[in-house]
Amino acid sequence: MSILRNVKSLVPLFDRVLVQRVKPETKTASGIFLPESSVKEQNVAKVLAVGPGTVDINGNKVPVSVAPGDHVLTPPFGGSPVKVGEEDYTLYRDSEILAKINGE
Amino acid sequence: MSILRNVKSLVPLFDRVLVQRVKPETKTASGIFLPESSVKEQNVAKVLAVGPGTVDINGNKVPVSVAPGDHVLTPPFGGSPVKVGEEDYTLYRDSEILAKINGE
Amino acid sequence: MSILRNVKSLVPLFDRVLVQRVKPETKTASGIFLPESSVKEQNVAKVLAVGPGTVDINGNKVPVSVAPGDHVLTPPFGGSPVKVGEEDYTLYRDSEILAKINGE
Amino acid sequence: MSILRNVKSLVPLFDRVLVQRVKPETKTASGIFLPESSVKEQNVAKVLAVGPGTVDINGNKVPVSVAPGDHVLTPPFGGSPVKVGEEDYTLYRDSEILAKINGE
Amino acid sequence: MSILRNVKSLVPLFDRVLVQRVKPETKTASGIFLPESSVKEQNVAKVLAVGPGTVDINGNKVPVSVAPGDHVLTPPFGGSPVKVGEEDYTLYRDSEILAKINGE
Amino acid sequence: MSILRNVKSLVPLFDRVLVQRVKPETKTASGIFLPESSVKEQNVAKVLAVGPGTVDINGNKVPVSVAPGDHVLTPPFGGSPVKVGEEDYTLYRDSEILAKINGE
Amino acid sequence: MSILRNVKSLVPLFDRVLVQRVKPETKTASGIFLPESSVKEQNVAKVLAVGPGTVDINGNKVPVSVAPGDHVLTPPFGGSPVKVGEEDYTLYRDSEILAKINGE
Repeated sequence: MSILRNVKSLVPLFDRVLVQRVKPETKTASGIFLPESSVKEQNVAKVLAVGPGTVDINGNKVPVSVAPGDHVLTPPFGGSPVKVGEEDYTLYRDSEILAKINGE
Repeated sequence: MSILRNVKSLVPLFDRVLVQRVKPETKTASGIFLPESSVKEQNVAKVLAVGPGTVDINGNKVPVSVAPGDHVLTPPFGGSPVKVGEEDYTLYRDSEILAKINGE
Repeated sequence: MSILRNVKSLVPLFDRVLVQRVKPETKTASGIFLPESSVKEQNVAKVLAVGPGTVDINGNKVPVSVAPGDHVLTPPFGGSPVKVGEEDYTLYRDSEILAKINGE
Repeated sequence: MSILRNVKSLVPLFDRVLVQRVKPETKTASGIFLPESSVKEQNVAKVLAVGPGTVDINGNKVPVSVAPGDHVLTPPFGGSPVKVGEEDYTLYRDSEILAKINGE
Repeated sequence: MSILRNVKSLVPLFDRVLVQRVKPETKTASGIFLPESSVKEQNVAKVLAVGPGTVDINGNKVPVSVAPGDHVLTPPFGGSPVKVGEEDYTLYRDSEILAKINGE
Repeated sequence: MSILRNVKSLVPLFDRVLVQRVKPETKTASGIFLPESSVKEQNVAKVLAVGPGTVDINGNKVPVSVAPGDHVLTPPFGGSPVKVGEEDYTLYRDSEILAKINGE
Repeated sequence: MSILRNVKSLVPLFDRVLVQRVKPETKTASGIFLPESSVKEQNVAKVLAVGPGTVDINGNKVPVSVAPGDHVLTPPFGGSPVKVGEEDYTLYRDSEILAKINGE
């Protein structure tokens, strides 16, 4: 029995942000499968958990700039990969996250 | 349906600046197409969105030095590319932007 | 007779964290051996000992963010390996530890 | 029509300095063309515009040490090239400029 | 006659720590020689001398975290080798020492 | 006509030091030419001009540690070369100068 | 006539330390020449001159930790070589000196 059975048990440390990449759509809304070349690769991910932030040299807390549930744009490289079951996740430092994506 | 459908939903974090490169003119004002070799390559881009800035070690906010709508000179290399639909955008750190271009 | 006979005699310095990797299960609960390819490789480790932390430039103590007994997610690379008897351990800096894993 | 038609519309950011290299003389005062090998290569440039300077960690402004109109000695390598029309310019950080050249 | 005849005349500077690696046992307590492959390689060393420590930017002394007589775990690489007579010693910076080894 | 006609018009910026290397003697006092191999290569230079120094993060001026007229020992590598007319000069950062050479 | 005729005219700047390596003995006390392989290579040097030290960011002087006449252990690599006449000397930064060697 694995210690890490559920991604919800992962508590990021410092300013780390746990995300899961949003899989690109591979079929249309009406259920037609898209040829692979037409599937856009985007570094869009959903934030699952964030660390408590860091403390600067004057002792002030520096909170993480994103929150669980946010959709974010992640950098094309970097981050620490984590596999839980069959799913892939990534841990980034907060400052590596490029942008938040506002909902509509 | 993609999460990132509209570049306007991108909210840069920290001191990041979202720009779109201004495409060089490929035809004259009177509509004549220019041969490719005469099209000048310039790293001129339009600022679409900027982050909230950073906080220095004394807790003071350091705002971003450019604003949406500004035309700027970007460095020839670097930045994080973002594709939304068929359009290409780039995210730079504020300090990477070389110069503002004043309107006339 | 070796000086380092027992891992319990290791006292990490500064912000170092002594961990032992949790071995992936190689047989099922009912005792059936699993083929190697089905054994998931996870960088999950148990914290055995932590250093006293560091002191920042204003003289304030910065304690280590994990504690003995914690299960943690370690980075895929890095750390200093230590062998005691037939067992392998690793020492990380506190900031290299990616996440804590909450018990259930 | 290009956004960047005139070098005068370039406003350097931070401590950047926009310069144009002074072309070496290729003919004598009396109009005789000099053979290429006798033309001295000097990294002499004229300052066209300077940024507002930077702010140090105590919030004090650090102005740029040269001013438009100054002749300066630039380093043999580095800087960001900018082309406006047929002319070449370079942007340096203030601290990269080696020396001012006093007029006579 | 060599200036450095005795390791006891070495006084480490700053936060340096002079250690001698503890040689792995090559025979059993009863005097039987062990084959080389069964001799465990451990980076265990004895501290012989330590420097006075460093001074932080606020003028406070930062003492060395180990003391002469301590057994320590050293990193697998690094340090400055010193040879006195036929014996090999190593000088590390205090922060390179991984852990103290408690006596029993 | 060159902008940089006279090395005296060069005003180093920041903590830069303009020096000219002292040429090794190639003939004896009595006028006998020395074979090249007997001419000692020394990185000895004369200081021609120094910058105003730098400002530390607390706003205090940090003057340059050498003065025009000083003879100094320069590092074997580094520095920015400057050619004025047929003469070669070098600009160093103050901290790169190894030692002053006292007159006798 | 060389500017640098005498090593005593060298005045190290900042935290630099001028040393001369102590040559290993090549004959015994009774005058017998030693075969080269038995001559121990030690990085032992004598301090000839030291700089005035540095100033930290709070304006406090940081003196050099060794003094002329001290015997020191130098690192196996690094330092700036200086040749005066037929003799070789080296300039180190104070923090590169590994240890003092106490006299007996």
